[in-house]
Amino acid sequence: MYRTNTCGELRLTDEGRTATLAGWVQRTRKMGGMTFVDLRDRYGITQLVFNEALNAPLCEQANKLGREFVIRVTGTVRERSNKNPHLATGEIELIVDELEVLNPALTPPFTIEDETDGGDDLRMKYRYLDLRRQAVRKNLELRHRMALEVRRYLSDLHFLEVETPILVNSTPEGARDFVVPSRMNPGQFYALPQSPQTLKQLLMVSGFDRYFQIVKCFRDEDLRADRQPEFTQIDCEMSFVEQDDVITLFEGMVRHLFRAVLGVEFSSEAFPRMTWHDAMKYYGSDKPDLRFGMRFVEITDLMKGHGFGVFDRADYIAGIRAEGAATYTRKQLDELTKFVERPQIGAKGLIYARVEPDGHVKSSIDKYFTQEQLQAMKAAFGAEPGDLMLILCGETDKTRKQLCELRLEMGNRLGLRDKSRFECLWVVDFPLLEWSEEDQRFYAVHHPFTSPKPEDIPLLEANPGAVRANAYDMVINGVEVGGGSIRIHDSKLQDKMFSILGFTEERAQEQFGFLMNAFKYGAPPHGGIAYGLDRVVSLFAGLDSIRDCIAFPKNNAGRDVMLDAPTPLEPAQLEELHIDVKPE
Amino acid sequence: MYRTNTCGELRLTDEGRTATLAGWVQRTRKMGGMTFVDLRDRYGITQLVFNEALNAPLCEQANKLGREFVIRVTGTVRERSNKNPHLATGEIELIVDELEVLNPALTPPFTIEDETDGGDDLRMKYRYLDLRRQAVRKNLELRHRMALEVRRYLSDLHFLEVETPILVNSTPEGARDFVVPSRMNPGQFYALPQSPQTLKQLLMVSGFDRYFQIVKCFRDEDLRADRQPEFTQIDCEMSFVEQDDVITLFEGMVRHLFRAVLGVEFSSEAFPRMTWHDAMKYYGSDKPDLRFGMRFVEITDLMKGHGFGVFDRADYIAGIRAEGAATYTRKQLDELTKFVERPQIGAKGLIYARVEPDGHVKSSIDKYFTQEQLQAMKAAFGAEPGDLMLILCGETDKTRKQLCELRLEMGNRLGLRDKSRFECLWVVDFPLLEWSEEDQRFYAVHHPFTSPKPEDIPLLEANPGAVRANAYDMVINGVEVGGGSIRIHDSKLQDKMFSILGFTEERAQEQFGFLMNAFKYGAPPHGGIAYGLDRVVSLFAGLDSIRDCIAFPKNNAGRDVMLDAPTPLEPAQLEELHIDVKPE
Repeated sequence: MYRTNTCGELRLTDEGRTATLAGWVQRTRKMGGMTFVDLRDRYGITQLVFNEALNAPLCEQANKLGREFVIRVTGTVRERSNKNPHLATGEIELIVDELEVLNPALTPPFTIEDETDGGDDLRMKYRYLDLRRQAVRKNLELRHRMALEVRRYLSDLHFLEVETPILVNSTPEGARDFVVPSRMNPGQFYALPQSPQTLKQLLMVSGFDRYFQIVKCFRDEDLRADRQPEFTQIDCEMSFVEQDDVITLFEGMVRHLFRAVLGVEFSSEAFPRMTWHDAMKYYGSDKPDLRFGMRFVEITDLMKGHGFGVFDRADYIAGIRAEGAATYTRKQLDELTKFVERPQIGAKGLIYARVEPDGHVKSSIDKYFTQEQLQAMKAAFGAEPGDLMLILCGETDKTRKQLCELRLEMGNRLGLRDKSRFECLWVVDFPLLEWSEEDQRFYAVHHPFTSPKPEDIPLLEANPGAVRANAYDMVINGVEVGGGSIRIHDSKLQDKMFSILGFTEERAQEQFGFLMNAFKYGAPPHGGIAYGLDRVVSLFAGLDSIRDCIAFPKNNAGRDVMLDAPTPLEPAQLEELHIDVKPE
Repeated sequence: MYRTNTCGELRLTDEGRTATLAGWVQRTRKMGGMTFVDLRDRYGITQLVFNEALNAPLCEQANKLGREFVIRVTGTVRERSNKNPHLATGEIELIVDELEVLNPALTPPFTIEDETDGGDDLRMKYRYLDLRRQAVRKNLELRHRMALEVRRYLSDLHFLEVETPILVNSTPEGARDFVVPSRMNPGQFYALPQSPQTLKQLLMVSGFDRYFQIVKCFRDEDLRADRQPEFTQIDCEMSFVEQDDVITLFEGMVRHLFRAVLGVEFSSEAFPRMTWHDAMKYYGSDKPDLRFGMRFVEITDLMKGHGFGVFDRADYIAGIRAEGAATYTRKQLDELTKFVERPQIGAKGLIYARVEPDGHVKSSIDKYFTQEQLQAMKAAFGAEPGDLMLILCGETDKTRKQLCELRLEMGNRLGLRDKSRFECLWVVDFPLLEWSEEDQRFYAVHHPFTSPKPEDIPLLEANPGAVRANAYDMVINGVEVGGGSIRIHDSKLQDKMFSILGFTEERAQEQFGFLMNAFKYGAPPHGGIAYGLDRVVSLFAGLDSIRDCIAFPKNNAGRDVMLDAPTPLEPAQLEELHIDVKPE
């Protein structure tokens, strides 16, 4: 053993003991014939003391230690004169008798501190040094604890974790697959799973009853800040359940995680549920952030037809009430206008109206409307003196999306999106199908195995777009952390779904034959849910990007710049795999 | 909720209660106006009763139920007259009032019983039905419990489970990689990890101190019964440790698994340790099965040079003593001779000698040796009346391997390899390097990061083949379940290793530059171990193949016959990935 204790372990009660520690040199400083070294490991920091008067050669050796050297020391634990209340070991220090350099270190390219001076690219290349920073490591410790708690919770409820294969079959429906050429089957390819969806349904057919898996999934999509080519799901499925059973059980899991990991306790009332229709109507999003109100107020009927062309040409007019923001300056309002006019949002302009202290409404559309009309609008918003109303108009769906962005921006500006507060929500009654104008066909909103609400089945032929799904998403603070559905367990209904999705019988058989056949041998009613572990951890840790809770993430070009992957292959490898690289 | 109870839950204490169950029809039988249905789910079997006299239409409905139909029933719990002591629910039955068929089922292609009538191929194609058999499901339940116990044990000891990426870089050293063409980086490929070896070492450089992961690994090798293209490792690494620390901690983990999962308690003495040299000398294998003795007895000096040409030409003569096998018939001895002469073993013949009741030795080489010489041999073997000595000779290494096979065969024949007994062993002091005659270079026996024993470092230049590694394998019942080593943490020593392995500086930098560079920034001494989860589970479950503890295994051609993977891709997919399939 290289050490008797970790660097986070010694306390005043250990005074007088001899201890051996090993770790990294965080910093050294000389002061009045003494050299102080902060020795760091994963568990903490302990102050080492070298006394020139007592042992000059040892002290000289200590003076030569560079940042991040790996050392081992033996010494005596002593009470500190100037205690450090911010450090768990802050009441003691170690008077060192022996020092051994286990490994020297080059000066790191950035400082190993919570606030580092390293840029993104440099920290990605030297990820192993970035991971030394406590701020980064804490996220991975949190991730470990959360995964462990999920496993405990679900195992206690008789869920079995079953590993499903990573080398599976390609299913062109859905996102793009990563593929793996097979050496033993020339010209053929495995795919990496986008999720174990069909396999977990097969496990239900197998009678596994309750399945879960914390599992890597893969999507070959263009990357954004919150997307990685490989990501981790908490994937779950249950038999003999209805939507309420799944929702109740997994609400319990999330409550358990909040309690066990963050010490956050919610009221015993069930998390609110909102239909997809209401979420779109009141928040313009299927994942509303409920940490603050500012629900959309629709004023189309009220404001249309009064001769203001912009409104009169609009399908939809709606706004939000920003409490106490009537004091916004011209400059601030211009910023907001620029915000909604940005190409990625695309509004044509922003209309605002403030309520003066005397109740009078002062707006950017004063010349088109009478004060009475504006007062009626004020009433619709429930606005009080000091409030600001922000209004957008245009085509309904587009305007809702724009207003959603504006609402979130105002939430940020008014400090209403506190990362330490959590508001959980179930969004339910999603549409089953979505029409693609481009492909002139319906697509499954979730996936082709999602069951329609029984009462909507009669609509499947006549009006597929109106059919609601037995599907549900869990949304926390505006982040969709999980989603699932009750699946179709009737093979005839599944056939019908494939036909509505434009699959020929042959193609459905080719791609999903194994599942459709399995359903003929006794499939139980079943449903499930999958959580994005990366997202849940990011949310718990208050991170802006999932990258910060992944040990070795890829950059936006899908590269691991530390490992330098991907790379070209040797010609012999390509030969064995029966493939050629095509010149561009 | 579809049910109030599972099929394994109701007991005599529930008598009189109304219960709703859901599950699969295991079997139905009619008897004197009653219909009995065994209803099965993952948790057990409950007997359902339909009484023609009480409810004729319901009983008729029950008579129409086929095997594996999925049904839901409601009824009253009643004490059974003929109790079934083999069933947890065997004291009760459910008198059914309501029956609903949730899903009918085609007749399964094989019987869903512990002893099924389905062949291997059929059961692989319908794996979802095979998984319904309790015998198969039990293995996956065991796997779940074992993985959970590993996680508990290691987490309690401050190990952090860190997920490492699946899309990594190709490392031609080692087995063949599976690769993944990158769409975003034309002509470049990711590799799937053969193990997270380098990444876990980087985590040690990052100061993670104690890492583990239960993780999928991939090797594109030709398959055998106990090999799968993807397999699962319990991968572990620790900092500031020596060999003894790793061995002690992971011995504890294995003891914990035996205790928690099988209820097996070993003596408190440490597991035996054997040098690789002794393992080869006494058992002809680096993974000896210690459930029985039969250590090799070398008799080269004793038996050579007496005019028996076969012995006189041999480098090595050795045998085993089979206790009480002197009664073996001519036919049995012929079988053994044929066994060792099989091409995959390749011995040239088998010499045997038995000890008669009076102590006299009777052998197949009587005409070449005097009774005194044979008595000396008997003494060397420590053979007693009734024992059989089986002797092989030839080139040392080959003969040892042959004798190892013979020893295991004799262990089987004498019933000494009881699957419910477990003998654990550490094999230590492996050679660091192995000379390849074919490639005229040294290869690392474990991998290039394994550290030599400090006392052997001076031999690295003069006699690399004699250098022993700080490496260790855990062997249970002749199965290598885990292996690891203390790693090199000194970048200069690592450079030397690469040069001994014939890597140019450029190639070492290209392939392992990220690791070698990382070591320059302060690497702690570290080491670790990896267990094959599939192997450990198979061993605990007493299985002959790892396939039986994998939910969806691949066949010997690397195919998933249920999913039908791999398959050809659409031309558009190949186009996007910048690759072509080469015609054969």
